[in-house]
Amino acid sequence: MTTGYEKPATESASDEAAYALDRRTVAAILYAVDVDDRDKLVELMEPLHPADIADLLEQINAYDRARLIRLYDKEFDGDILSELDEAIREEVIGVLRPDVLADAVREMESDDVVDLLEDLEEPQQEAILRALEDSERVAAEQALSYPENSAGRLMQREVVMAPEHWSVGQAIDFMRANDDLPEQFYHVVLVDPRLKPVAQVTLGKLMATRREVALRDIAEDEFHTIPVDQDEEDVAYAFNQYHLISAPVVDADGRLVGVITIDDAMVVLDEEHEEDILRLAGVSDDSSISDSVAATSRRRLPWLAVNLCTAICASLVISQFEASIDQLVALAVLMPIVASMGGNAGTQSLTVAVRALATRDLTGANVLRVIRRELLVGMLNGICFAIVMGVVGMLWFHSPLLGVVIGAALVVNMIIAGFVGTVIPVVLDRLGADPALASGTFVTTTTDVMGFFLFLGLASVVLL
Amino acid sequence: MTTGYEKPATESASDEAAYALDRRTVAAILYAVDVDDRDKLVELMEPLHPADIADLLEQINAYDRARLIRLYDKEFDGDILSELDEAIREEVIGVLRPDVLADAVREMESDDVVDLLEDLEEPQQEAILRALEDSERVAAEQALSYPENSAGRLMQREVVMAPEHWSVGQAIDFMRANDDLPEQFYHVVLVDPRLKPVAQVTLGKLMATRREVALRDIAEDEFHTIPVDQDEEDVAYAFNQYHLISAPVVDADGRLVGVITIDDAMVVLDEEHEEDILRLAGVSDDSSISDSVAATSRRRLPWLAVNLCTAICASLVISQFEASIDQLVALAVLMPIVASMGGNAGTQSLTVAVRALATRDLTGANVLRVIRRELLVGMLNGICFAIVMGVVGMLWFHSPLLGVVIGAALVVNMIIAGFVGTVIPVVLDRLGADPALASGTFVTTTTDVMGFFLFLGLASVVLL
Repeated sequence: MTTGYEKPATESASDEAAYALDRRTVAAILYAVDVDDRDKLVELMEPLHPADIADLLEQINAYDRARLIRLYDKEFDGDILSELDEAIREEVIGVLRPDVLADAVREMESDDVVDLLEDLEEPQQEAILRALEDSERVAAEQALSYPENSAGRLMQREVVMAPEHWSVGQAIDFMRANDDLPEQFYHVVLVDPRLKPVAQVTLGKLMATRREVALRDIAEDEFHTIPVDQDEEDVAYAFNQYHLISAPVVDADGRLVGVITIDDAMVVLDEEHEEDILRLAGVSDDSSISDSVAATSRRRLPWLAVNLCTAICASLVISQFEASIDQLVALAVLMPIVASMGGNAGTQSLTVAVRALATRDLTGANVLRVIRRELLVGMLNGICFAIVMGVVGMLWFHSPLLGVVIGAALVVNMIIAGFVGTVIPVVLDRLGADPALASGTFVTTTTDVMGFFLFLGLASVVLL
Repeated sequence: MTTGYEKPATESASDEAAYALDRRTVAAILYAVDVDDRDKLVELMEPLHPADIADLLEQINAYDRARLIRLYDKEFDGDILSELDEAIREEVIGVLRPDVLADAVREMESDDVVDLLEDLEEPQQEAILRALEDSERVAAEQALSYPENSAGRLMQREVVMAPEHWSVGQAIDFMRANDDLPEQFYHVVLVDPRLKPVAQVTLGKLMATRREVALRDIAEDEFHTIPVDQDEEDVAYAFNQYHLISAPVVDADGRLVGVITIDDAMVVLDEEHEEDILRLAGVSDDSSISDSVAATSRRRLPWLAVNLCTAICASLVISQFEASIDQLVALAVLMPIVASMGGNAGTQSLTVAVRALATRDLTGANVLRVIRRELLVGMLNGICFAIVMGVVGMLWFHSPLLGVVIGAALVVNMIIAGFVGTVIPVVLDRLGADPALASGTFVTTTTDVMGFFLFLGLASVVLL
C-alpha cells in the first residue's frame, strides 16, 4: 500500500498495459521464492495492492503459489484472501498456517468474511469461524442464514443511522463520539422509532449544512430500500439503473438490518457479466483462468457432449438425403454454407436478446416488436446473401436452379435464425431459467438442422 | 421521484420481475397518449425514475415516442435525456421543443452534458451548447477537447479540495461557507500549493474526527490518481480492481483537473461488457434493442458477409474431395460433426481468453501456461469424443476404419481449436486491437476449414 506522500501523483502510467502486472515483477518475485529470500520477497510485494497480489497468485502455478505463501508467511493479509478467485481460495487456505489464517480473517470486513465463508467446505468454514471473535462469529453465522446470492449475504451490518427527528448537529456529535464507525460510508440513514428507514442524508450535505437544520430537511429526494432476500442480480441492477451509492437493507418487517454499497454492487455486476458471456459460449460459469487441466476439461465436457448430440441430429437429417448427395455431390459442398449463415445470424439475434434481457430492455412491452424486427432483419439480410450465393452457386456449378435453391434455403434459414434467436432466450427467461444458459446450443441446433433440411430437401424436389 | 416519507420502506418488491417496467403501466401510458390526456400522462409518469422513463421511451416505437414526448412537453427533464440510449437520443432531441431542450440541458451535471454532446451531430451539438450558460459552455467545450473515451470526458470538473496543511475544522468551515458544492462527493482532495493532489480524506473520517486534527493525519492509506488522457476502460478497471470510490484526475503536469466517481466507472464497465459480448457474436457494438429494422440489418451485415466468405472457403476445401464423397457419401453425413465440435471447443477457449484479457487475468506471466492448458484440454476432450464418435461411426456405417478416421480428425481439430481460441485473441490484444473483435470468425473459420480438411483428407488416404 502506498500513501500519497511517498509517490508522485502521476505514478499510474497511461500506457497500453495500464495496471496489468508486468512480467518482470512476476519474474523477480518468483526468483526471490526460488532462492528463499524472504526479505527480498517482502520488499517486492510491499508496493503491490492486495488485489494485484491476488492476481499474481492466480497467474502462477500451484507449486510456486504454495512456496510463495509459505515464504511470505505472516505478511499475508486478509484483503488478499478476499480478492482471490474462488477457484484457488480453498487451496490457498489449506496452505496458510492456522495462526496466519486466523490473523488474516480477523482483519477482514464482515461482508468479506461472509463472501469467503460461503464458498468453503465445512471443515475450512469451521476453522475460520473459530478464528473469529464471538460477536463477529455470530454476525457471520447470521449472514450465512440468508439465502445464497441474496442481499443479506452482500450487505454490511455496520450502518450509521440516526433518529429521523435529529438535527445536523446531533448527528455530527453522535459520529464524533462513536469510535466504531465503518471504514467507508456515504449516508446517514434516518430511522423511525421501530427502526424502519425513512430517508437518508448524504455526508456531503451533512457537512455543508448548519448544525441546527433538521436531518429530514436535507434528506435525498430519491430513496430506495432493498429487501434482505432480494436476489443480488436485482440489487446490482437497481444500483446501476438508479445510480445508487448506498442503500439500506430491510427485513420482512421493513426494519433496517444492513447497508449495501455501490462497490459490492459493482462486483456483482461484473460477476453477472462473466456468467452471461461464459454461458453463451457453453462454458461453466465458475471457470477460471487458474483452473487445472482436469478441472477445465471437466467443466467444458457437458456442453460439448450436448453439442455432439445435436451435431449427430444434423447428420441424421443429412443422411436422409444420401441418395440426393450421391446424385449431385455439389450439395455436400454447399450445404455447410446454409447452416453456417443461419448459425451466425441466430447467434447475433441471441446475443442481442440475452443482453437486452439482462439490462431489462427487452420486456413484455416490446417483445412482439423485437421479434417482428428480427424476422424482418433475417429476411432482409437473407435476401442480400441469397442473391450473392445464388450468383456464386450459378457460376461455380453452372446451374441456375442450384443458385435459386441455395438462395431460397438461405432466406428461410435466416428468418428462422432471427426467430429462434429471440424467442428461445425470452421463453427461458419467462420460465425462470437463465436466458444465456443453453440458448446457444438450441439456436445453432435449429439453424443447422433446418439449414441442411431446407437446402437438401428443396434440392431433392427441384433439382433431382 | 419518490421521497422516503411518502412510500413504505418495502416498496421495492422482490418478485421475479423486480424493477422491470410492467406491461400494464406501459399500456396505461400509451392509452393516455392515444386519448391526448396530458394530466393522466403526467400522473402516470410522476412515480417513474428518469432511468425508467428512458427505458420506456426505448421500448415503444418511434411514432408513439414522438407523441408521448410532445404531450409530456415541459415535464421532460434533463435526467431522462442522459439516461437515454444513444441510438434514439438524436431522434428524441429532434422531437423536443427548443425551449424544453434548453431547460432540460441546463439541469444536467457537467459530465452528463459532455456525454450527451459527444454522440451528437454538429447542428444538434451547436443547439445544445447555445442553450448552456457561458461558464457551462466553456466547460463543456474544454471537456470535449479531451480524446474520446478518455478520463477527461468522464470526469466531473467540480472537485472539493483543501490545502494539505489544513485541519478538519478548517475544511468543515470551508464547506459550510461554500454554496456550490457538488451534489454527490465522497472525498476531500488534499492539494499542494501547485494544485497537485497528494492525498484524500473520506467524508466519514472527516465527520468522525475532532476539529483540530490535521487533514493529512486522517488521509486514506491508498491513493490513486488518474491521468486525464487515460482510456476509460483502464479507469473502470482501476475502480473495479482497487475498489475506488472516487479518484482525482490530473493533467500532464500532475495538477488536479477533476474527479471521477465510481458510478461513472460502473457505467463504463457495463458498456465495456456490452461491447465484448456483442463483438464476440459479430454484432456491431453500438447496436441497441431500439434500433430500426434497417439499422439492425445494416449493423449485422458486415460480419455475416465475412462469415459468408469464410463459409465459401470451407466449401472450397470440401470441393477438393468431391471424388471421395462421390465414392463414400457417409463422409458428407459425418463431416459437419468434426467442424461443429471444433467450432464449439474453439468458442469455449476463445470466450475464456477474451474475458481473462478484459480482467487482466491473462498476461505475459501466464500466457504460455494457459496455451499449454488449452492444448491439453483440447486433447483430453478430443479423445473422449473421438471414442464416442468412433463407436457411433462404426455402428452407424459398419466401418471400423471410418470410426477411427472421424475420431482422429476430432482429436486433432479440438487441439487446434484450443490453440487458435487462445492465441488469436492474445495476438489481437498485443497488436492493440480489441481481442473480442473478429476473433469468433477467425476461430470458427479455422476449425471449419481444418475440420473438413482433416476428416475428408484422412478418409481419402485411409478409406479409399
